[in-house]
Amino acid sequence: MSVLVVGSVAYDTLETPAGRAEKILGGSASYFALAASYFTDVNMVGVVGDDFGPEQMSAFEGRRINLEGLEHAPGKTFHWQGKYSTDLNSRETICTDLNVFEHFKPKLPESYRKSDRLFLGNIEPSLQRDVLEQVDAPQLVGCDTMNLWINHRLEELKKTLAKVEVLLINDSEARELAGDWNVIRAARKIRAMGPKTLIIKKGEHGALLFQEDSCFLASAFPLEHVKDPTGAGDSFAGGLMGYLDQSGSHDEATFRQAVIMGSTVASFCCEDFGVERLLTLKQDEIHERFHEFASMVHFDRLPLK
Amino acid sequence: MSVLVVGSVAYDTLETPAGRAEKILGGSASYFALAASYFTDVNMVGVVGDDFGPEQMSAFEGRRINLEGLEHAPGKTFHWQGKYSTDLNSRETICTDLNVFEHFKPKLPESYRKSDRLFLGNIEPSLQRDVLEQVDAPQLVGCDTMNLWINHRLEELKKTLAKVEVLLINDSEARELAGDWNVIRAARKIRAMGPKTLIIKKGEHGALLFQEDSCFLASAFPLEHVKDPTGAGDSFAGGLMGYLDQSGSHDEATFRQAVIMGSTVASFCCEDFGVERLLTLKQDEIHERFHEFASMVHFDRLPLK
Repeated sequence: MSVLVVGSVAYDTLETPAGRAEKILGGSASYFALAASYFTDVNMVGVVGDDFGPEQMSAFEGRRINLEGLEHAPGKTFHWQGKYSTDLNSRETICTDLNVFEHFKPKLPESYRKSDRLFLGNIEPSLQRDVLEQVDAPQLVGCDTMNLWINHRLEELKKTLAKVEVLLINDSEARELAGDWNVIRAARKIRAMGPKTLIIKKGEHGALLFQEDSCFLASAFPLEHVKDPTGAGDSFAGGLMGYLDQSGSHDEATFRQAVIMGSTVASFCCEDFGVERLLTLKQDEIHERFHEFASMVHFDRLPLK
Repeated sequence: MSVLVVGSVAYDTLETPAGRAEKILGGSASYFALAASYFTDVNMVGVVGDDFGPEQMSAFEGRRINLEGLEHAPGKTFHWQGKYSTDLNSRETICTDLNVFEHFKPKLPESYRKSDRLFLGNIEPSLQRDVLEQVDAPQLVGCDTMNLWINHRLEELKKTLAKVEVLLINDSEARELAGDWNVIRAARKIRAMGPKTLIIKKGEHGALLFQEDSCFLASAFPLEHVKDPTGAGDSFAGGLMGYLDQSGSHDEATFRQAVIMGSTVASFCCEDFGVERLLTLKQDEIHERFHEFASMVHFDRLPLK
């Protein structure tokens, strides 16, 4: 079993109410790969510059992460700088230096073509399809996107959506993509664009899983101390896809567990800056929090009439 | 078993994306009483003016609602006018005419003094205590409040909070009352003010129930068509307190069911303007939606390690 992920590998400079971190490891593929590696083998696809040395690489080493597809290009690594609001519910981008990421054309190593599951991280939609076409016969294809592509590459995005089974998107993006403020109606419209499974992420308010006629309501695991929410969505995706790959099943019950697993891993991610917490996390901690989560949402059914 | 509620009885003029309604029945006590009456006997305390005739009274008749404590005063009934935003997540008050509600001094009929449970709706905090003192030995006292009292009657509010077991409050009010944007920390601070049970309402994002060391995460029932969210919080409170009174238990498991019951009744309330849907609701519909709710949040636990 293996999951392939394509996305950004970056240096992030972050400011949150808990402090500041300078040029730390970030990027959607980094968070996804670290999260998913707790469950399965990950084939990582991305690009870094000359300034990404052995020290940075070491974060991925000694884990179930295949780095053959991580290209080293001449130039600097993608750098993003952001600042969060006091309540962490919004953030402002201070600068985005695409650097080597600007002309990134993902080329998959031969060994990646047999990947069982695929996650097309948030990159330009036609590039997402380029990656998809390089994999032989994936059993499940998930993707992410963002408002930039919804607003400026809608036709390309729709072509990608027609080819994926699972879309992960946040609530404001879902409303924008569907042109409907009601998430239930928005979900129906988005599922008609292709993805049979739609997961709408609502940050601290949880996530909604839509499949056929069913809707699963997932809360978020409540945290008293959030240091840095960067990468929570990508860790969610990594935990979700990793768990699905490990389980080898795509039925509704497994998807529901996978959503809770994604939330669980994402909650750990927020406890420290950047990928720090994902580097020290233990299998037992994940397992224990999953159970705690289950207890926190449990209630007894009423007797049937 | 009986629940006493004190609060406003009003005429509301509402504008939502679904339409407009002119001078329809509203007020916190009205929504609460109608919701709770599906579960138990309700002793209603409030005031109306000369313009509140038999037609308006008929909404409460033929139900488990005792109207002996609904005072008829000379003057006009409280009138509130509001307009909702397109996504229904915010509303603007266009006018508030307190009228007979301005000098309301709740006096309980003799028959109300034996009420088992008490809900102090959103009125001035010292008036809430006046009502509390008129009841002999309530088994459970719940209350609601709002930012007006948090900002302008904080000391009075704290005296009330010291005397109640259950506080229902929305998330922005909880943050304001505690002076902490993190709801988990805010919950701890508010519970230290008195109420052992705290329910933080998050509208379409559900509710959180805090008791001792436990936190219960409740989603909201998702609705595709919301006509009017007015009274959802009061219907939630009515469903919750009504269910607790019917059950006769205050243990954690019953409280969790009561929160889901409150959400269930509140979801019906939003389906039509004002109290309309609460007037036509059937027991079976409530029961069925509670079960649907349970199915929508269910996921299988992982095997224990």
